[in-house]
Amino acid sequence: MIIELRQDILVANQKMVSVVKERLAQEKVLMLNIIGSPGSGKTSLLEATLAGLSERFRVAIIEADVETKRDSERLERFGVPLYHINTGGMCHLESDIILASLEKMDLAATDVVIIENVGNLICPADFDIGEHAKIAVSSVPEGDDKPSKYPVLFREAAAVVLNKTDLVPYTNFNVESFTTDLRRINGTVPLFELSATGGNGVQAWLDWLIQKVEASQA
Amino acid sequence: MIIELRQDILVANQKMVSVVKERLAQEKVLMLNIIGSPGSGKTSLLEATLAGLSERFRVAIIEADVETKRDSERLERFGVPLYHINTGGMCHLESDIILASLEKMDLAATDVVIIENVGNLICPADFDIGEHAKIAVSSVPEGDDKPSKYPVLFREAAAVVLNKTDLVPYTNFNVESFTTDLRRINGTVPLFELSATGGNGVQAWLDWLIQKVEASQA
Repeated sequence: MIIELRQDILVANQKMVSVVKERLAQEKVLMLNIIGSPGSGKTSLLEATLAGLSERFRVAIIEADVETKRDSERLERFGVPLYHINTGGMCHLESDIILASLEKMDLAATDVVIIENVGNLICPADFDIGEHAKIAVSSVPEGDDKPSKYPVLFREAAAVVLNKTDLVPYTNFNVESFTTDLRRINGTVPLFELSATGGNGVQAWLDWLIQKVEASQA
Repeated sequence: MIIELRQDILVANQKMVSVVKERLAQEKVLMLNIIGSPGSGKTSLLEATLAGLSERFRVAIIEADVETKRDSERLERFGVPLYHINTGGMCHLESDIILASLEKMDLAATDVVIIENVGNLICPADFDIGEHAKIAVSSVPEGDDKPSKYPVLFREAAAVVLNKTDLVPYTNFNVESFTTDLRRINGTVPLFELSATGGNGVQAWLDWLIQKVEASQA
């Protein structure tokens, strides 16, 4: 019974996805959906990304939290348009909320919309919200078994960021084991090993992103 | 609409909760529900707990994973009855699955059932599964803002474990900030700061647990 209800929600969501995709295509806007566990460093990755991207492109952010505006407050200093969604307990974003957010934006004056989804490795991976790419963020202290244990997200991801690599020496994280498991699930996905706060490896991620934005405008 | 569906699921779940509670009361079995993010160290906490508890009490484990049996495999060496639930994508446990697991157990020969819920800080907190206590596990690398950002779990918790305290020196985690936020949400909840793999602080957690089991048998 629960699975049937779940299917209804997914079907309702899917109907709005095509509307979202159409709006983005009209204005040649790239939309990314960042997904990861609570505390994997999604907001820190956004901070590093905005520092490297916001002078080159017109970026807008959609920030989703179950409660509080803390993540949005962290990003305000970059002065980019920022739309905060407080899901009030809901564990993922759906396409209708995204469409409502896009309606409030000046899409003609936007190159790329980056969404920080709710901190959750499971539910957000099930919901297409009209994005061009899902970005999976996993962090070293979470352990090297995450791709195997949460395969839906890692299979769906257009890029994987392994964050907090500066903590490798203090944990039993095995980079080879993580990579091998990831490759079994998603053989060709780009993997960026980086420290969003330390800066190591961030440039390769930015280069990939810049190429993505440029391709979407061609 | 989605909120209504959600309510239906919660009501259906609640009906079975009383059956679960009744079964546990009949046999004087204590049941704990461990909830935390992916990679917060729930399985490591279980390893440390079984090492300290399994000679004193008859413990049974219910292990839930979205996919894989990796966590169950890690616990097999303790030789305690272990029931594995593969939720097949579902992001939380519900009372009917727990009841089905309890039916398979020899409850008359069990003092305490410990459930490791799916790695998720949001959805499992909404579902009463008949447990006597929810245990919230949060870990240092996730950041000190978790109680404020995911208040439902921290409000519901009968105990909070702050795991991976050995990583404090390598992160910007502020223990005082975590504690202050937690106290605002749940003023009296016992907080155990520990390293499940290193062993620091584990004894205080075990002492609390032993007291709980003994009280349930009185």
